[in-house]
Amino acid sequence: MLSMLIRFCRCSLAFLSSPLSVSLPIGVFLLLDILNDEYYMKLALELAAKAAGQTGINPVVGCVVVKEGRIVGIGTHLKRGTGHAEVHALQMAGDEAEGATVYVTLEPCSHFGKTPPCCERIIAAKAARVVVASGDPNPQVSGRGIARLREEGIDVTVGVLEQQSRQMNEKFNKYITTKLPFVTLKTASTLDGKIASRTGDSRWVTGTAAREQVHTLRHQHEAIMVGIGTVLADDPLLNTRAPVPAIDPVRIIVDSSLRLPLNARVVTDRSIRTIVLTSGQAAEDKRQALEAAGVEVFVCGTGAKVDLTEAMMKLGEFEIGSILLEGGGQLNGAMLEAGLIDKIILYYAAKIIGGVEAPGTFTFNGIEKMADAIELEQVNVEMAGDDICVSGYPVYTK
Amino acid sequence: MLSMLIRFCRCSLAFLSSPLSVSLPIGVFLLLDILNDEYYMKLALELAAKAAGQTGINPVVGCVVVKEGRIVGIGTHLKRGTGHAEVHALQMAGDEAEGATVYVTLEPCSHFGKTPPCCERIIAAKAARVVVASGDPNPQVSGRGIARLREEGIDVTVGVLEQQSRQMNEKFNKYITTKLPFVTLKTASTLDGKIASRTGDSRWVTGTAAREQVHTLRHQHEAIMVGIGTVLADDPLLNTRAPVPAIDPVRIIVDSSLRLPLNARVVTDRSIRTIVLTSGQAAEDKRQALEAAGVEVFVCGTGAKVDLTEAMMKLGEFEIGSILLEGGGQLNGAMLEAGLIDKIILYYAAKIIGGVEAPGTFTFNGIEKMADAIELEQVNVEMAGDDICVSGYPVYTK
Repeated sequence: MLSMLIRFCRCSLAFLSSPLSVSLPIGVFLLLDILNDEYYMKLALELAAKAAGQTGINPVVGCVVVKEGRIVGIGTHLKRGTGHAEVHALQMAGDEAEGATVYVTLEPCSHFGKTPPCCERIIAAKAARVVVASGDPNPQVSGRGIARLREEGIDVTVGVLEQQSRQMNEKFNKYITTKLPFVTLKTASTLDGKIASRTGDSRWVTGTAAREQVHTLRHQHEAIMVGIGTVLADDPLLNTRAPVPAIDPVRIIVDSSLRLPLNARVVTDRSIRTIVLTSGQAAEDKRQALEAAGVEVFVCGTGAKVDLTEAMMKLGEFEIGSILLEGGGQLNGAMLEAGLIDKIILYYAAKIIGGVEAPGTFTFNGIEKMADAIELEQVNVEMAGDDICVSGYPVYTK
Repeated sequence: MLSMLIRFCRCSLAFLSSPLSVSLPIGVFLLLDILNDEYYMKLALELAAKAAGQTGINPVVGCVVVKEGRIVGIGTHLKRGTGHAEVHALQMAGDEAEGATVYVTLEPCSHFGKTPPCCERIIAAKAARVVVASGDPNPQVSGRGIARLREEGIDVTVGVLEQQSRQMNEKFNKYITTKLPFVTLKTASTLDGKIASRTGDSRWVTGTAAREQVHTLRHQHEAIMVGIGTVLADDPLLNTRAPVPAIDPVRIIVDSSLRLPLNARVVTDRSIRTIVLTSGQAAEDKRQALEAAGVEVFVCGTGAKVDLTEAMMKLGEFEIGSILLEGGGQLNGAMLEAGLIDKIILYYAAKIIGGVEAPGTFTFNGIEKMADAIELEQVNVEMAGDDICVSGYPVYTK
C-alpha cells in the first residue's frame, strides 16, 4: 500500500454536556484492510486519484490485474490520447493476464475514441473476470462495455467502491454529460467570513497546510479563474507552486471592461495560456492589444457585464473541463447566484478580524429567507493544519 | 459506565490528493478503558460534569471511593452551600472508607467555607490514599488540602486527568481568581458568517441538534446575555427549553438607553430574574418603572453606552460567575473588542445566504492587519447534527 496516502485524522470525542474533549489521532488503512475485491479496487482508485490533473477532460482511471493471489499488472490513464489504464496493466501482466481478474475503476470502453476499445484488449488477453467500480457516465459508452465483456463469457462484477469512483471523476462526469466545466470554488476566510481586513490586508489568512492544499487543487484543475480585481490588486502569476514540479492550470480572468494591463504578469508570462472573459461592451482596441500580446479574449454576452453562463458554455466548447474559482466576494457571489458552482471548499483560519467594510467570501444581493439559503450536501469537515476545511456541493433548488 | 455519555464522533479519513473521503463512526470509551487511576477518575469527572449548571459560582466536583477493587461510594457536589462531593461519597462508603482510595476531581478543601473542610472528613474516615485530578485554583485552598492529608500520612497522588478537570471548571477558575464572570459566546451563522438574511429572517439558521445544545449551554451557565435589539425584535423569554426540566439562567439585557418595554416578556415573566445593564445617561423615570416591575437595573459607567468592563465587574460582585452571550453582531463585537469573551462556540449551518446588508456574527470596526486578528486556541471542531461546531478560546495579545 502506498504509505504516503495515509493521513491521520483528528477525531474529537466530545461529551454533550461536559466541557471534556479529547483529541486522539487514529492510524488507519492497513489495519482495517481485508483481502477482498475492495482490497484491490482501493489500489486501482489510488492509482487513478494520483493522476488527477494530468488527463485533461478525460476521466482518471486505475487498473489492477490479479492472478492467483498475486498482483501481476497495474496501470493508470496518464494522458488524454494515450493508452487507457487497462492497456498499461495488461501490458505489464503479459501472458499472466490469461484467467486473471481485472479490477478497473471505470467501465472499460467499447468504442473507438482516440485509442482502440479496451474491451477488445481484455477479451484478447483472455481475462476470466472483470470487476468495475462504476459504469461510464458517457452516454456513448454506458453499459456497452460491460455487455460486450459478458457476451464473451467474462464474469463481470459492477459497483465495488462505486461511490468513491464517481466522486473521483466528478469533474469528468459533469463535463461529459453537460459540456460545461466543473467549477470548484475555494475561499480562505476568518471565522467571521472575512477574506481580508478592512484595510485590504490578506497576508495570510490561512496557514501553510491550507495554502499547500490550494496549490494541489490548482494542479488538479484544468483552469484557475479570478476576477480582474484580484489581478489589479496583487498582479499574481496564478501558477502552481508545490514542493515538486506541478501542472499549471490555464488562467481565466473575468474582466468585463478589459482593465487588464498589458504589463500584468498574467499577460507578459507566456509559459501559461491566459483567457480573458469580457463583455460585449469592452473596447475593441484593448481587445486587439491583448490578443496581440498572446492573450485569448472571449466575448460573453452583449451586456456591460460578462455573461457567466455563456462564458462557461464557451469554455466548455474549448475543452476546459474543470475550473478552480479563486475569486473575490463579487465573482464568487455572481457565480453562485448563476448556479454555476459545483463544489465549494471553504478554509477557515481560527481567528476573528471584524470590520463591517472588510470583504467577505460572497458578495451578492443575498437570499430573502433563511429557509431558501443555498445548502451544501455531502458536507465534509476536516483540519488542514491549524485551519478548518469545510467542503460540500451546493444544491440549487430554483 | 454511564452509557448516555458516549457519543459517536464523525471521523473523516481523507486522502490529501484524492477526492476520496470516508466517514465512519467510531464507538469509544468502554473498549479503550483500562483499569487504573484514570478508570475511576473518569467516572468522578463524569459525575462532576453532569452537575454543571447547578452549583452556582462553586466548582463542579466528583468523587469515587474504591476499596479492594470495588466502588464503595460515589458523590458529586450538587448545590452551593450543601455537602461537597467527598462528603457524599464517604457517607455512602460508611465503614468501607477505612483503607480505601478516594478519587476526587478537585483538591479537597482544608478551610471552613459554607461547609466544614473535606480534608478532616477524609482523615476521620481513615482513607489510605487520595487521588486528585487538579489543585484548587482558589488561593485560599491551593496546596493546603494536599499538605494537610499528607501530614496525616495519607498517600496523595495529584494530576490524574488534570487538564480535563481544569477545563471542566474553567468558569469557576476564572471567577475565583478574578471575580469576573466567565463569558461564553455562542453564535449560529451560515458558512458566510450571516446570522440572518438581509430581510432579518433567522428562523432557523441551524438544525435541531445545535439548538438543543444551545439550551444545554443555557442550563450550564448562570446567566444569559443579549442586546436590547434582540429583545425588541423577537420578544424572547430567554429560558431553557429541554426535553427534561432544566435550570433557567438569569437574564441580562444590555440596554444603554432603557428602550426595554414594560410589557416585554423578560419583564412580565417574573419566574426568572432579569438584570438590565444600562448607561449613566439613561432616563431615571424609566429605570424606576422597570425596578417597580421587578427588574434589577445596573448603571454601568457615565457615558452614553454601557461600560461593558464595569458591567462585568458589577455582575461578578453580584455572584454571576458565568454568562452565555447570545448577542447580535454589535454586542458580540463590542464584547470581543473589550477582551471580555473567554470562550467562543460558533455553529455553522452548511448553507450560504449572501446579502451585503445581512447581519454578521461580529460587528465592530475590525482589526487592520490579518496578522493581528484575534486567534482562537485549543480549537475543537465537531458536528452537531448537520451543522458544524467550532469552539476555542480567544487570545487577546494587546
